[in-house]
Amino acid sequence: MKAVVFDKELKLVNDYKKPVPQKGEALIRVTLGGICNTDYEITKGYMGYVGVLGHEAVGVVEEINDPDQSLLGKRVVSEISYGCHTCEYCAQKLYRHCPNRHTLGIWKKDGCFAEYFTMPIEVLFEVPDNVPDTQAVFVEPLAAACEITEQLHIKPFEKVVVLGDGKLGLITALTLNAQNIDVTLVGKHQNKLDIASAQGVETSLLNDFKIEKKYDVVVEATGSISGFETALALTRPRGVLVLKSTVAASKEFNLAPIVIDEITVLGSRCGQFAPALRLLKSEKIDFSPLISATYPIDKAIEAFEKNKEKETLKVLLKFD
Amino acid sequence: MKAVVFDKELKLVNDYKKPVPQKGEALIRVTLGGICNTDYEITKGYMGYVGVLGHEAVGVVEEINDPDQSLLGKRVVSEISYGCHTCEYCAQKLYRHCPNRHTLGIWKKDGCFAEYFTMPIEVLFEVPDNVPDTQAVFVEPLAAACEITEQLHIKPFEKVVVLGDGKLGLITALTLNAQNIDVTLVGKHQNKLDIASAQGVETSLLNDFKIEKKYDVVVEATGSISGFETALALTRPRGVLVLKSTVAASKEFNLAPIVIDEITVLGSRCGQFAPALRLLKSEKIDFSPLISATYPIDKAIEAFEKNKEKETLKVLLKFD
Repeated sequence: MKAVVFDKELKLVNDYKKPVPQKGEALIRVTLGGICNTDYEITKGYMGYVGVLGHEAVGVVEEINDPDQSLLGKRVVSEISYGCHTCEYCAQKLYRHCPNRHTLGIWKKDGCFAEYFTMPIEVLFEVPDNVPDTQAVFVEPLAAACEITEQLHIKPFEKVVVLGDGKLGLITALTLNAQNIDVTLVGKHQNKLDIASAQGVETSLLNDFKIEKKYDVVVEATGSISGFETALALTRPRGVLVLKSTVAASKEFNLAPIVIDEITVLGSRCGQFAPALRLLKSEKIDFSPLISATYPIDKAIEAFEKNKEKETLKVLLKFD
Repeated sequence: MKAVVFDKELKLVNDYKKPVPQKGEALIRVTLGGICNTDYEITKGYMGYVGVLGHEAVGVVEEINDPDQSLLGKRVVSEISYGCHTCEYCAQKLYRHCPNRHTLGIWKKDGCFAEYFTMPIEVLFEVPDNVPDTQAVFVEPLAAACEITEQLHIKPFEKVVVLGDGKLGLITALTLNAQNIDVTLVGKHQNKLDIASAQGVETSLLNDFKIEKKYDVVVEATGSISGFETALALTRPRGVLVLKSTVAASKEFNLAPIVIDEITVLGSRCGQFAPALRLLKSEKIDFSPLISATYPIDKAIEAFEKNKEKETLKVLLKFD
């Protein structure tokens, strides 16, 4: 089968071995995939991963190695991690923190940028009929945005700022707004901010935004250390700074404001799919303005090149 | 009056103007003071503060400029901050986060390393009779340790590590232990660890301590970036790293583990005195082994020199 593989270099392999579903697993035929910046990071060595890339996809279940055949023939999406079922994290269904987890296209499990992939049926979710593939393919980053309200109780009177107008910031702001949370998206690109404001999100260019320590919750989605510092300067005493993007300080960096203002820095990563699918079904968010380009699988290398461009938001890979 | 003043340099002034209590304030005659590392930081320029140093003291109320005279003649301790009474933080009695606050010996208010100081009566607390000055003088760092359980619900089955066996780490570990919390103090100095273990705290030398991501709560009290990194390596996924000491990263520093393991970094600073005074009254902690030296006010400069020595824990200043 065709597969997008990283092994020292990124390549399209035409004769990759089709996977065989193990006990409890389903075989999924991929119809549409989405490139995430994590995929790009992996091609630069992140996690030391080697194998089929990809963890965002929609597909159809073609085979199930389990007595429960209820998902056979259904259109599905897959959570990205599954666990060992014996640890304390699995007991809480926090598969994504299981120390023995496998993560689709990231850690110990071939990904979904291939004609077929397999995952345990317990992490598969049927896509509601009214949600087209081009929306459903956003379920994984949408779930990551929903993770914020799983971890943190944002009260109806609290003011939230999302900092950064890339994919992550846009999806986070749209998601919080769809939950009736008082959110303002702050970024540097009017054209990207416009995508959010067209769907009812308050937005502001960073240069026009008054930097005051007055926001209850600030989501850092820029991925830069200067973004982190701006986020700190916006968070009120005893407020919460949600760290969504992985940031590395490459210069001198002072953590004292966190102590002085007793700020909570909350690391936030992937999320569960159930609330994300409810949001998709409700059609409260339209993800189509985030699609910058769609490439056939045969042009996957070009798609990855497109993903690198600064103006690009989401790049999709079409499989049929 | 005699006062320890920082104004470009640290000096003992013999004829500093005795303060006059303003409306709502009491005049307190100091009997015993404690030097905090923040005092030393101020002499290096922290906060740009100029004036009488000191925010840890016990004293006797000699005069009150208020109809409420109930504290007159009483032995008291004073919280370090008072607020504007009009902001949202003051409404919650979070005077220590009031943007217009005054902080004893740190910000806009002369401190307590003087024969007399003044503070509003609303932040004064009578010292219980069974608590001698040499214990009561620890109320401020003790309140800062109590702050952790004000901010964070530590459940009875959770495992806590306090990292760092300086004053801050020792007092934090003793305080959590006195609240029946499962705490282990980890440090580099057997003689300091012994102070805590003699009072029932589990302790370990850092070299003997297995670094595993398994602790629910880790309190960083080393003040070093390597301590922060060790604390991160000890905090379980979704656990809490309490940042007690102000840390500045002077080298490349990666925040990604906070996101990947969804760790909460909780900045924690000063605390309320009421729970600290309850602990003092209960005599559950003996602070006397933390006293490295006591100097008369006339030798305050020597006392500050002693405080700089690596082996020193608490240095006290005696006023009568």
